Amino acid sequence: MSQPIITLTTDFGPSPFPGLMKGVMLGICPQASLVDLSHGVPAQDVRAGALVLEQALNVFPSGTVHLGVVDPGVGTARRSIAVAALGMFFVGPDNGLFTPALMADGAAKIYELTSAGLFRQPVCATFHGRDVFSPVAAHLAGGLDPTQLGPLLTDPVLLTWPQPNEEDGVLYGAVLSADSFGNLDTNLPRTLVEDFLKGRRAEVRLGSMRVIGIQRAYGQASNGQPIALYNSMDRLELAINQGSLYARIAPDRGSAFGLAVEVRPLD
Amino acid sequence: MSQPIITLTTDFGPSPFPGLMKGVMLGICPQASLVDLSHGVPAQDVRAGALVLEQALNVFPSGTVHLGVVDPGVGTARRSIAVAALGMFFVGPDNGLFTPALMADGAAKIYELTSAGLFRQPVCATFHGRDVFSPVAAHLAGGLDPTQLGPLLTDPVLLTWPQPNEEDGVLYGAVLSADSFGNLDTNLPRTLVEDFLKGRRAEVRLGSMRVIGIQRAYGQASNGQPIALYNSMDRLELAINQGSLYARIAPDRGSAFGLAVEVRPLD
Amino acid sequence: MSQPIITLTTDFGPSPFPGLMKGVMLGICPQASLVDLSHGVPAQDVRAGALVLEQALNVFPSGTVHLGVVDPGVGTARRSIAVAALGMFFVGPDNGLFTPALMADGAAKIYELTSAGLFRQPVCATFHGRDVFSPVAAHLAGGLDPTQLGPLLTDPVLLTWPQPNEEDGVLYGAVLSADSFGNLDTNLPRTLVEDFLKGRRAEVRLGSMRVIGIQRAYGQASNGQPIALYNSMDRLELAINQGSLYARIAPDRGSAFGLAVEVRPLD
Repeated sequence: MSQPIITLTTDFGPSPFPGLMKGVMLGICPQASLVDLSHGVPAQDVRAGALVLEQALNVFPSGTVHLGVVDPGVGTARRSIAVAALGMFFVGPDNGLFTPALMADGAAKIYELTSAGLFRQPVCATFHGRDVFSPVAAHLAGGLDPTQLGPLLTDPVLLTWPQPNEEDGVLYGAVLSADSFGNLDTNLPRTLVEDFLKGRRAEVRLGSMRVIGIQRAYGQASNGQPIALYNSMDRLELAINQGSLYARIAPDRGSAFGLAVEVRPLD
Repeated sequence: MSQPIITLTTDFGPSPFPGLMKGVMLGICPQASLVDLSHGVPAQDVRAGALVLEQALNVFPSGTVHLGVVDPGVGTARRSIAVAALGMFFVGPDNGLFTPALMADGAAKIYELTSAGLFRQPVCATFHGRDVFSPVAAHLAGGLDPTQLGPLLTDPVLLTWPQPNEEDGVLYGAVLSADSFGNLDTNLPRTLVEDFLKGRRAEVRLGSMRVIGIQRAYGQASNGQPIALYNSMDRLELAINQGSLYARIAPDRGSAFGLAVEVRPLD
Repeated sequence: MSQPIITLTTDFGPSPFPGLMKGVMLGICPQASLVDLSHGVPAQDVRAGALVLEQALNVFPSGTVHLGVVDPGVGTARRSIAVAALGMFFVGPDNGLFTPALMADGAAKIYELTSAGLFRQPVCATFHGRDVFSPVAAHLAGGLDPTQLGPLLTDPVLLTWPQPNEEDGVLYGAVLSADSFGNLDTNLPRTLVEDFLKGRRAEVRLGSMRVIGIQRAYGQASNGQPIALYNSMDRLELAINQGSLYARIAPDRGSAFGLAVEVRPLD
C-alpha cells in the first residue's frame, strides 16, 4: 500500500490541536505519513502561513496533501477549499493561505468543500481544522476523487505581496519574513538581482545597514557581522553570521515584513 | 499489518525526552504511528495534562494507546498504571492524569504496572517515561493482553474539578484552561447553559468583563472585542477576536484555572 | 518491508526547516519513521547538539539513522560526513556534532559525503540539511551501502569535554547542560562517584549550594529544595524538586555548561 503524505501548517503553537487533527486523519487514512511543516505561524497571520507553505512547493513529492489552518474567519461566511495545483493538494480556508500555489500553477483547480458527509459531525464552528479540513485532507490522501468535494470555484481569495521594482538604477525590494535564526528573507529572486547587477558588485541596504557584496555562506562574514547571500528559496537574504539580524534591527516591530531593502551597483 | 496509534502527552517541552521515548517504542512496535498530543503541559501540572488528554477522548480511533507523562512523583511510591477505557488505553503514573477517561467510562479497568520484564532495564528512577511507560505503551500497541501488565486496581487517584452550580438564577462556573490563542475554556457544557437559559439571551461575566450573547464564531466580534461562544469541547468559551483574553485578564497569574465565570439571563 | 528510523536533531527551532527536510526524506524513503529528537538546540551550539545526540546512543534500535544539523559552517570548507558507529548511522557536518558516537565506538567508520549524485540539486549553500544531509540519510535508511557515499576519513573534528578529576580527597566535575525542567546534568558518571565515595555519604556543592546525600527520586526533597541524584544518563544530576535549578542559579549566564561541581565525602 502506498504511503501518502499529509503536511500540517497552522498557528496553533504548542497546543494539542495539531495532535487532535492527526487523530482524525489517522482514523480515516491510517497509512498516512503526517509531517508538521510549522505550527509556529504567528496567530491569525495568513500571509506568514502562506510564506511557510511556499517553501514546501518544490520539496514534497507529488501527491502530497498540504493541510493549512490559519483561519481567523473560522465559522463565518468564508469558504472552505481544496486546491489541486502542482500535482499536490492544499486544504484549508479560502483566505489567501494558498496564494503561492495558486500563482505558481495557472491550471490549478479549486474545489469548494460542500460535501458535509465527508466532515466530522457535528462540525464545531470554532475548529474547522479538526472537523472539516482534517477529514477532507485524509480522504484526499486516501485517494478520493476531488470532484466529490464540491463545486469548482474560480474566484479564490489571493494575497498580494510587495513587488520588486527598479528605479534610477536602484533595485528596490522588501523583507518578507524572518526565520528562526533571525535571517531576513526578501522578495528579490536571485535571477532578478543577477540580471540587475550584470556582474557588478552590489551594495545592499537595509535601514542604516550597508553590506558590500553578495556572499555564498554565512561563514564568509566574521561572527556578529552582517552578510547578504542567496537563501534556500533562491532569494536575497540578509543575515548576521552567528547572530540574529531580526533581533538587532526590528525587535519591537512584531514582524520584519515590509522592511525596505535596496540593491545598488558599486562598480 | 495494522498500524496502531500511540499518542504522547508530557510536560517535557522542547527537549529530547519525547524523542527518546519514541526510540524505545519503535524498537518494540516498529509499525506504530506516533502522535504528539502535547509536550507543552506546564511542568508538573497534572491537571493541565488531564485536560489535554480529555480533548483526545472523542477524536482518536478505537485501539489508540495514550501515553501520559506528567509525573512529579517519578521514582517515589506512586503507582504506575494502564487504564483500559472507552476502547483505548492510557499509560502513565497513577496521579490523576487519566481522570477524564476514568470518569467517562464506569467500566474502566486499571492495571498496576508490576511486570518488570516488560520494562527497559535498568529502570532509571527519574525517567519512567522512557523505561516503564514507553515499553508498556508499545507492547499494548503491539497487541499485548493487558492482564499481562499486573494486577487490577480499584482505587486510582482522581482529580477533582470545580463543578458548575446554579444559585438565585445565576449559573456559576470556572475557567479550566487557556489555549495557545489565549481563549478561556470553562467547565460549563453547552447543554447545561442552554437548559439554564431556556432561550433567553445571556450576559456572561468574567471579572469586570461583560459579554452579551453567545455567538457562533470568533469573527462575529470586532477585532479586539471579547466574545462568548461554544468551543471544540462543546463548552462555553470566552475569547477576544484576534487577540488573547488570557494575556489581557490574567497574564501575571501563571494560569487561568479557577477564574470565576457567571452566566445571567437577560430577557 | 522493514520500517527504518531516521531521527532529526537541529537548532532550527519552531521553523518549517525540519518539515522541509522530512519532505525530501519521504520522497526518497517513503517507508521511514521520522522522529524529532530535538529542534531546540541553541542556535549554532554544536556541543549542546552533541549532548542531545549522546542521549540517543543507547535508546534507538540498531540501524537507526541519526541526522544532525547544527551547522554554523554550512557552505564553507567544512566537510560533510556520515559516521557508521554502534550499529547506527550519523549524518551531518564534520564539526564535532557526533563526538559521543565517535568516542564510544573505536571501530567507527567515517565517510566524507562527496557523491553529489545523491544530493538534491542544485545544492543551496545555506541549507545542506535539506539538500545534502537529508537525501543521504534517506538513502542510508533505504539500504544504500555507505561505501557509495565517498572516501573514508580518519581525522574527524572532535569536541572536548571537561573531564572529572580527583584531588585532595575531593571529586571535581562540571555541569554539561540544563534540561527543560532546569535540572543540571554533570560529567560525573555514577560508577565514578560510587567508586570515589566507597559507601560514604556525599556532600555535593554547586556555587554556594550544598546538598547532603545522593537520592533516588526528585520527590525525596521537599518542594523547592535542591537535590542530587543520578539521571537517565546515569550521571550525577543537581535539581530542585518541582522547580528549576537553572533558573535559580544561572539565569543570566546563557548556559549552565561548565559550572563547577564538587563531591566531598562526609563520613
